[in-house]
Amino acid sequence: MTSIDLNADLGEGFGRWRLTDDEQLLSVVTSANVACGFHAGDAATMRRVCELAAERGVRIGAQVSYRDLAGFGRRAMDVPSDELAAEVAYQIGALEVFTRAAGARVAYVKPHGALYNRVVHDEEQARAVVDGVLLADVTLPVLGLPGSRFLDVAEKAGLPVVTEAFADRAYTDEGTLVPRSQDGAVITDPGAVVERCVRLARSGVVASRSGRDIGVRARSLCVHGDTPGAVDLARRVRTQLEASGVRVEAFA
Amino acid sequence: MTSIDLNADLGEGFGRWRLTDDEQLLSVVTSANVACGFHAGDAATMRRVCELAAERGVRIGAQVSYRDLAGFGRRAMDVPSDELAAEVAYQIGALEVFTRAAGARVAYVKPHGALYNRVVHDEEQARAVVDGVLLADVTLPVLGLPGSRFLDVAEKAGLPVVTEAFADRAYTDEGTLVPRSQDGAVITDPGAVVERCVRLARSGVVASRSGRDIGVRARSLCVHGDTPGAVDLARRVRTQLEASGVRVEAFA
Amino acid sequence: MTSIDLNADLGEGFGRWRLTDDEQLLSVVTSANVACGFHAGDAATMRRVCELAAERGVRIGAQVSYRDLAGFGRRAMDVPSDELAAEVAYQIGALEVFTRAAGARVAYVKPHGALYNRVVHDEEQARAVVDGVLLADVTLPVLGLPGSRFLDVAEKAGLPVVTEAFADRAYTDEGTLVPRSQDGAVITDPGAVVERCVRLARSGVVASRSGRDIGVRARSLCVHGDTPGAVDLARRVRTQLEASGVRVEAFA
Amino acid sequence: MTSIDLNADLGEGFGRWRLTDDEQLLSVVTSANVACGFHAGDAATMRRVCELAAERGVRIGAQVSYRDLAGFGRRAMDVPSDELAAEVAYQIGALEVFTRAAGARVAYVKPHGALYNRVVHDEEQARAVVDGVLLADVTLPVLGLPGSRFLDVAEKAGLPVVTEAFADRAYTDEGTLVPRSQDGAVITDPGAVVERCVRLARSGVVASRSGRDIGVRARSLCVHGDTPGAVDLARRVRTQLEASGVRVEAFA
Repeated sequence: MTSIDLNADLGEGFGRWRLTDDEQLLSVVTSANVACGFHAGDAATMRRVCELAAERGVRIGAQVSYRDLAGFGRRAMDVPSDELAAEVAYQIGALEVFTRAAGARVAYVKPHGALYNRVVHDEEQARAVVDGVLLADVTLPVLGLPGSRFLDVAEKAGLPVVTEAFADRAYTDEGTLVPRSQDGAVITDPGAVVERCVRLARSGVVASRSGRDIGVRARSLCVHGDTPGAVDLARRVRTQLEASGVRVEAFA
Repeated sequence: MTSIDLNADLGEGFGRWRLTDDEQLLSVVTSANVACGFHAGDAATMRRVCELAAERGVRIGAQVSYRDLAGFGRRAMDVPSDELAAEVAYQIGALEVFTRAAGARVAYVKPHGALYNRVVHDEEQARAVVDGVLLADVTLPVLGLPGSRFLDVAEKAGLPVVTEAFADRAYTDEGTLVPRSQDGAVITDPGAVVERCVRLARSGVVASRSGRDIGVRARSLCVHGDTPGAVDLARRVRTQLEASGVRVEAFA
Repeated sequence: MTSIDLNADLGEGFGRWRLTDDEQLLSVVTSANVACGFHAGDAATMRRVCELAAERGVRIGAQVSYRDLAGFGRRAMDVPSDELAAEVAYQIGALEVFTRAAGARVAYVKPHGALYNRVVHDEEQARAVVDGVLLADVTLPVLGLPGSRFLDVAEKAGLPVVTEAFADRAYTDEGTLVPRSQDGAVITDPGAVVERCVRLARSGVVASRSGRDIGVRARSLCVHGDTPGAVDLARRVRTQLEASGVRVEAFA
Repeated sequence: MTSIDLNADLGEGFGRWRLTDDEQLLSVVTSANVACGFHAGDAATMRRVCELAAERGVRIGAQVSYRDLAGFGRRAMDVPSDELAAEVAYQIGALEVFTRAAGARVAYVKPHGALYNRVVHDEEQARAVVDGVLLADVTLPVLGLPGSRFLDVAEKAGLPVVTEAFADRAYTDEGTLVPRSQDGAVITDPGAVVERCVRLARSGVVASRSGRDIGVRARSLCVHGDTPGAVDLARRVRTQLEASGVRVEAFA
């Protein structure tokens, strides 16, 4: 039986501010990418999200970011490798304490925002992030885009790698994401999103923007949860996956 | 044979800024209170200090603080208990990753600056700090002032407690520190500092400001290291302790 | 004809996060307390809010705070006077640039959150805030609680002072606010809030928690706007004030 | 008679940390690039430096930076234009309050670190910085590298532009700076630095790395001051300029 993981970003508030509907998301996803304080995620929120995730058996990952609260980690930064590696390790360590207290553990690492996009092609920063993960735990899986420098460097360093696809993003004929700056980059029709997810999970195929079927290896599907509508959509994706005979569960 | 621990604050730079002479201090002290990023201590500095301390066999402690880079943790803050506990745990976790990578571990926790002073008498914040330590590790020793609420609360919570004295601070007849705002709060004569340290270590006695001998329980002596002169003084303290038959070693 | 000012906190988002419904609030209030970056309020948000307020003829005030994004300025801090004064001036200056670009000016200063509460009784911090205002502009009005140390110190320093009352807060027999920690501190019945506001504006009288009529001098009423319901309530307050013959306008 | 301006970065401490010897530098330079809080420069330091500079008749400029305390503004960042413009204006406004209180004014703007280097060639960020300056004051001169996109965009926008050269940096045959990553990028021989400065000031010519004489338009010379040796060198540069008949004075 086919199975797939559903991951989403959680705990992306900071102090007085909330963004993600953590309670609702934890009833849908199997993997929670928890913000670790550099783009979002104060310590009390991290603790609470880890407790909730652990209670519900949702796997916890460290969503590591550039140090950029004002930009929500969406501003690419030229961080020297030794600093970036240490910053990644710092965030993982900070999250570990809350997972451990909740009877769980940090089960994987996923870069956030501009860092995620940067390490798709930037070998030096990809290495720095991998070095940061290795500092924390040499057995920690990393989650990323298939074909990215990041997953390539991680694999060579001996880290388990987990590929993911995006439920609501258009793909080029080459299997890369259509940049957000282009029209049609985001699929907005809920029905289409659900259908694409089912097809991706069952046959590893998605229609590109030009209509061609392309193969996309993905052991996890990323859904979004920063709006009420997004949570509903994520729930529909999960329901339809299960109705189609796909087991929704955390990656092995 | 009598023995005593020497502790000092290390890694108190941030990014481009340096403060403590970490290299030199690590050749003098037996316990390093490493800044964890909230009042000082960027991730790369934390990593480097942990590596150096581990190489030299110096014990590493988490120096936890209010979140206050602009004030260097010297501004008392009314932080709600759940936030303070989580912030303390966050800092310990962040440091753990670097101690582990260096083949060492976080061996104790010591509050910094305004938080240190606050938990001497503030039961609520003392509890919050202890809760933060318990979140991280229920066996972690805490370092503090004898007679403080902090050590009292920690002891009741089952944490090992370690008392410390200050090499260069004057004491009242009641055995508390003369506030820095008063004249004579800091002993500036190096010879006097060295002599007091030896007496404290050998007989647990120090002359109060008024000249009375008072008992001060201390398993560790805190020395300062943020100026070149301070490092020299710390070295003299260590040399004279050893010459007087006191073994300088990390607390058990 | 009786007149009163309506003020509310605006621009209290930060980067990706939003909190206050600035668009809606600007159609209700006559004075906008704009966050200046220390507890909330990134530069782009400050610019946008100033432009909107200027377009609509809403007066702009600097809402100054402790430096505390993580705590939203709600954690009282023991900031040394010279630092606090400089921090207050810094925030006013930063806001000035955006008011000037929008063809307006900073028309008053109001402390935020824990700083607001602290300077009600703390003479030293009250003086520091006043010093910060004087650094920026010796003619700048300050908004605060009648009877507070803050307004007293400001008046003695020659600054114009503007008293305010709170639409939805209960008062003691002595005319001070019932602390939020006590039951009944916040009036939640919208009808009661509206009625109290009209009475305050028309006759300067409000019923205390025990039912006694007490006098409250207030040239401005503070309404809240961080929830949709709050904006609706603020609008009802304004409508009813005007229907009762009270002119709603910025203080002179 | 030939004249030249000497500029240096000042006030680059933060809270407990110091970096630049502001007192000494103010006895050497004619223009002080004051850090505005984004890469360095807390409010109290900004106030103090402005007071000292005003007392000594040293012109004050706003040294604006990416928002990056941890990286000291040395990490290039992809900041969206509207955010960058607003951040630049915010910093200028914050500094203005302290210059005004000291009886002076913000006389020019100079980008710092990675932002300085980025706007040499990045048209979009150059425009954003210029937009930020225009928001603050449409008559404010900007200081930058001759031939940079920044000065070009600023000139087209009607801002006065001031070119600068670097006392201790090697130049290519094309008149650009040799990147710091290359050998010989920084001239370390004090005598050579002094001689180059005099020649630059008197004849607008400097020897390139390959030994060719190239023309460098510069109305200001940038000297460094973050080490005791650097201040001495800056003083030697000034003394020798004056001995060679060059008047050292702020640009008109």
